[in-house]
Amino acid sequence: MSKDWLAEIQWTADGLVPVIAQQYDTGRVVMFAWMNPESLALSVSEGFAVYWSRSRQRLWRKGEESGHKQKIIDIQLDCDADVILLKIDQHGGIACHTGRHSCFYRSLTDGEWQTTEPVLKDPEHIYK
Amino acid sequence: MSKDWLAEIQWTADGLVPVIAQQYDTGRVVMFAWMNPESLALSVSEGFAVYWSRSRQRLWRKGEESGHKQKIIDIQLDCDADVILLKIDQHGGIACHTGRHSCFYRSLTDGEWQTTEPVLKDPEHIYK
Repeated sequence: MSKDWLAEIQWTADGLVPVIAQQYDTGRVVMFAWMNPESLALSVSEGFAVYWSRSRQRLWRKGEESGHKQKIIDIQLDCDADVILLKIDQHGGIACHTGRHSCFYRSLTDGEWQTTEPVLKDPEHIYK
Repeated sequence: MSKDWLAEIQWTADGLVPVIAQQYDTGRVVMFAWMNPESLALSVSEGFAVYWSRSRQRLWRKGEESGHKQKIIDIQLDCDADVILLKIDQHGGIACHTGRHSCFYRSLTDGEWQTTEPVLKDPEHIYK
């Protein structure tokens, strides 16, 4: 398989692309992260999401510690070729390091960020 | 209304936050853009999405030319407080400047970005 599709992406000056992870069947947006060309190529070849951790400056196989891997269903690209939408199946139903289904668990209500989603699993039991 | 909720956001070094726009009822992710504090405050006060255009370096009231405004239904924040998920109702059903419903209209199939979504309206008729 040629890697022309990788070259078509408009990478940032840092060589990254923003990635939105969406549960393929419910449509819930569960996470936002970044990929570099290597992590995107690995995501395709392994069939599970591999991100680039900007804080740790290394490849981050989602679920490598927690087991909460993301099986890739579809990879979509936007009109400007600079954002990726990843349709995934979230293992364990937990994408967030806080133990929630989605990282987007707060809504702006009455001028405050109010939590709208429960913790499904204590993070202390996710990361041993 | 106090603006503490604005201060809780972890803005980038450029003073921006990435925003995912999602059609509130179907769950379709239609767009990805950026906001600065002013555009987010205006989004809240006006009830329609106002972005910060990085290319034009100015406020961008979504739909100001096309009429394809985005009525805000909900504003969600992620665990790290550095990404916003905007639940919107897309006027005209067209978010993309190509005249498609969503900017994410290409899927990686057989090693190519293949278009999977039709143009609903000729851009020449959107931007007069």
